[in-house]
Amino acid sequence: MVRAIMHGCNGKMGRAITTLAKEDAEVEIVAGVDAYTEVANEYPVFDSIEKCDVEADVVIDFSNAKAVDGLLDYCVEKQIPVVLCTTGLSEEQLQEVEEASKKVAVLRSANMSLGINLLMQLLKEATKVLSPAGYDIEIVEKHHNQKLDAPSGTAIALADSINEAAGGQYEYVYDRSQVRKKRDKKELGISAVRGGTIVGEHEVLFAGIDEVIEFKHTAYSRTVFGKGAVEAAKFLAGKEAGKYDMSDVILK
Amino acid sequence: MVRAIMHGCNGKMGRAITTLAKEDAEVEIVAGVDAYTEVANEYPVFDSIEKCDVEADVVIDFSNAKAVDGLLDYCVEKQIPVVLCTTGLSEEQLQEVEEASKKVAVLRSANMSLGINLLMQLLKEATKVLSPAGYDIEIVEKHHNQKLDAPSGTAIALADSINEAAGGQYEYVYDRSQVRKKRDKKELGISAVRGGTIVGEHEVLFAGIDEVIEFKHTAYSRTVFGKGAVEAAKFLAGKEAGKYDMSDVILK
Amino acid sequence: MVRAIMHGCNGKMGRAITTLAKEDAEVEIVAGVDAYTEVANEYPVFDSIEKCDVEADVVIDFSNAKAVDGLLDYCVEKQIPVVLCTTGLSEEQLQEVEEASKKVAVLRSANMSLGINLLMQLLKEATKVLSPAGYDIEIVEKHHNQKLDAPSGTAIALADSINEAAGGQYEYVYDRSQVRKKRDKKELGISAVRGGTIVGEHEVLFAGIDEVIEFKHTAYSRTVFGKGAVEAAKFLAGKEAGKYDMSDVILK
Amino acid sequence: MVRAIMHGCNGKMGRAITTLAKEDAEVEIVAGVDAYTEVANEYPVFDSIEKCDVEADVVIDFSNAKAVDGLLDYCVEKQIPVVLCTTGLSEEQLQEVEEASKKVAVLRSANMSLGINLLMQLLKEATKVLSPAGYDIEIVEKHHNQKLDAPSGTAIALADSINEAAGGQYEYVYDRSQVRKKRDKKELGISAVRGGTIVGEHEVLFAGIDEVIEFKHTAYSRTVFGKGAVEAAKFLAGKEAGKYDMSDVILK
Repeated sequence: MVRAIMHGCNGKMGRAITTLAKEDAEVEIVAGVDAYTEVANEYPVFDSIEKCDVEADVVIDFSNAKAVDGLLDYCVEKQIPVVLCTTGLSEEQLQEVEEASKKVAVLRSANMSLGINLLMQLLKEATKVLSPAGYDIEIVEKHHNQKLDAPSGTAIALADSINEAAGGQYEYVYDRSQVRKKRDKKELGISAVRGGTIVGEHEVLFAGIDEVIEFKHTAYSRTVFGKGAVEAAKFLAGKEAGKYDMSDVILK
Repeated sequence: MVRAIMHGCNGKMGRAITTLAKEDAEVEIVAGVDAYTEVANEYPVFDSIEKCDVEADVVIDFSNAKAVDGLLDYCVEKQIPVVLCTTGLSEEQLQEVEEASKKVAVLRSANMSLGINLLMQLLKEATKVLSPAGYDIEIVEKHHNQKLDAPSGTAIALADSINEAAGGQYEYVYDRSQVRKKRDKKELGISAVRGGTIVGEHEVLFAGIDEVIEFKHTAYSRTVFGKGAVEAAKFLAGKEAGKYDMSDVILK
Repeated sequence: MVRAIMHGCNGKMGRAITTLAKEDAEVEIVAGVDAYTEVANEYPVFDSIEKCDVEADVVIDFSNAKAVDGLLDYCVEKQIPVVLCTTGLSEEQLQEVEEASKKVAVLRSANMSLGINLLMQLLKEATKVLSPAGYDIEIVEKHHNQKLDAPSGTAIALADSINEAAGGQYEYVYDRSQVRKKRDKKELGISAVRGGTIVGEHEVLFAGIDEVIEFKHTAYSRTVFGKGAVEAAKFLAGKEAGKYDMSDVILK
Repeated sequence: MVRAIMHGCNGKMGRAITTLAKEDAEVEIVAGVDAYTEVANEYPVFDSIEKCDVEADVVIDFSNAKAVDGLLDYCVEKQIPVVLCTTGLSEEQLQEVEEASKKVAVLRSANMSLGINLLMQLLKEATKVLSPAGYDIEIVEKHHNQKLDAPSGTAIALADSINEAAGGQYEYVYDRSQVRKKRDKKELGISAVRGGTIVGEHEVLFAGIDEVIEFKHTAYSRTVFGKGAVEAAKFLAGKEAGKYDMSDVILK
């Protein structure tokens, strides 16, 4: 049984992970850290990581950038691997993450979803077979109407995986309405659909002669990121110092 | 049994309709007209409509703009309803179609597919219910990599149907990558995917709170336009003078 | 502004509807009724409907069968229309609903989702056009792995709508693996997919010659039923005595 | 440039491959073999393989079981690799294929589509990651209304790939309508949809907690099998004696 400290345990993701961990026979949350300690938790909660004296095998972090500094020091000192899911770290902090990873296992990923990370890997393989065989590649992503950016960071990450596997030959195309011409082989179209409360849907098409192969990922809630973090924690416990990401979890 | 003359019988669509009519118990092709008469047909073929002396209830036309003038005169004179599928008619010819329709039944439609025309009608109804209830509407269309225009004419026609039912409140949006902002309620996004040999796929989404309703049309070959023409011919036989389109066939 | 009493305000659906109503400019929850009154609500909460003395235009009910008797008496006496969403009513209670609807407006529906009810109506129209034209109709539904019944009640309701529009000619087919034969025109296949936490997805296909038309409904959470109830409440306020269902809300 | 002999050049698949090869810069059909020789071909056609004296690097075979015996002898004698796509070989013939493959390169596959074979391989990888993480796996296939068997052989082959990667733990379930129970972890549901002229669609779902990953293959015509055969021919030219299948083409 992997013993985890949930750093940021009373935030939305912390609570989701607490629920997921209860249903998982291989992991147990033994302590939490959160500025808000008045909530009733089934494990002891500390208002800062420094005060936490519970023995653990791994830390899962979904807190905020400010809390990450203390966390890294703690993990290095106590030699506890850490799954770092907080986003928006400064350049300086990213440097600290780099340093910390020389002394303890640190896992960090652009997207914590197990499914999206698996997809990235499979898309690379598909690209290596289908791109030389002349298949055209396109991406369609769908998100809720409050999202500010388009296309989504995940869509770009999927496109980058494909492009990497294809030797960087693709140019991303976001709009075809302004020109009147046939599709160029070097195009990789990315379309962004927005509406309602759609959590996140990514579809990648490989279109050949009379054949289409589609890869599609649908997230129904942000819980999918928590699920990925739990799997990452189970993977990271006991690992030696170094930088890890979700592709390591998948390839284990 | 409806007796039809196939005008343009040895072109791609004429041959497809010949095959469809053979499998349809309610219609029979009794004569054909085509500049190329050396092909073996199961019915008599004339090199111009004027020479055709076979009695018929309706003419199905998939020929070329040049051949349409003679066709209209013939249909008015013989009082035979005509399903006019030839595209690219000149302004002058459209005026002649107008005149002819005062004397004989003429059916003409932007898109001859039964499915697309039905969809246009259902989308209007869906829009009347879901647009006031706050659902966002988006369209994604997919076509082969040789298509010059984007979005497709059919996608625009679907959007126009929706917009008409919503009192013209929507603005079509083709690209979201250049701005960083939430979706506006007045937007109707239209995305164009291009790849391989995809014949034509149109998907319309109504996205609300935790709910998405999708309408999707997939054409696997141009035969769908022939099928629509056959249904139109069965509908038009015996009708009185006037202008008809595919929505009449659907509402019959 | 429609003033609503939320009957069963502290259950899962009651809380969801409270959230939806706050975001809706046309409806306001002015009072709640629930056995659990210790939760903090933004409106007064009574432990039984009899004690509620707040003036309202409509009652939304998502409670339990036991609480429905008192509710009906109250609505008849106070002459307040009621949207009745509680399921599992006894035969005797259904009879009481019938009686009550002679004296006050009562709305009840098998499925409260606006989207599913709209789909039922559109499927009838599609069937009337496409069934005589030889299109085959099939349904695929997907639900979570804890669901006991298959196919879903909603899938059956969709099939019944189609069959009604087709003059009852279809036989439902749930398994094709045991026979080796071509599809019969009278078949309407219904497939049930089960996995993960899928909330509910229903897809209806009309497959013709080289053409497929699909209608698909995806629910991302149970909130869709709450959204339907809110729309129903806005519709029902001020209506005269009678039985109503979601199709009236759509056709308004 | 790979020089190919098309064995069965005037059948449906032979003609499709002829068209594909003309558009492919890396392969050329230098001769054909067919019982029907009266058709005009752009290459010399022989009525039996024995008479063919054109030098070639590979033979593509889409003929009939009877013609395969002579073909194998020819390929062994001339030392020309052969892509064997003819189905329905007898046990005795399969034994001959086995013998021939000791002396010359022979490629044979249950399904010649590049996409389906790639999918089989990717599904194995996805299964190894997602099955232990608790994702449920389901397959939905769609075919035309004239198909006799259900589920399709390809659906079974996809399921077998998955099951092999999961250590054979799955039981295939074709019908859920007869029992009232939760989905068992050991189930792998396979649903068969039938309608219209659908050429072939296969969809594999991995459904986890609030997440679904889908892999979908759509064939728009039988040309996809020809495309696979052409890729196989390009791969096989110059290979040493041995048994090959489409997975070798993908992994090259």
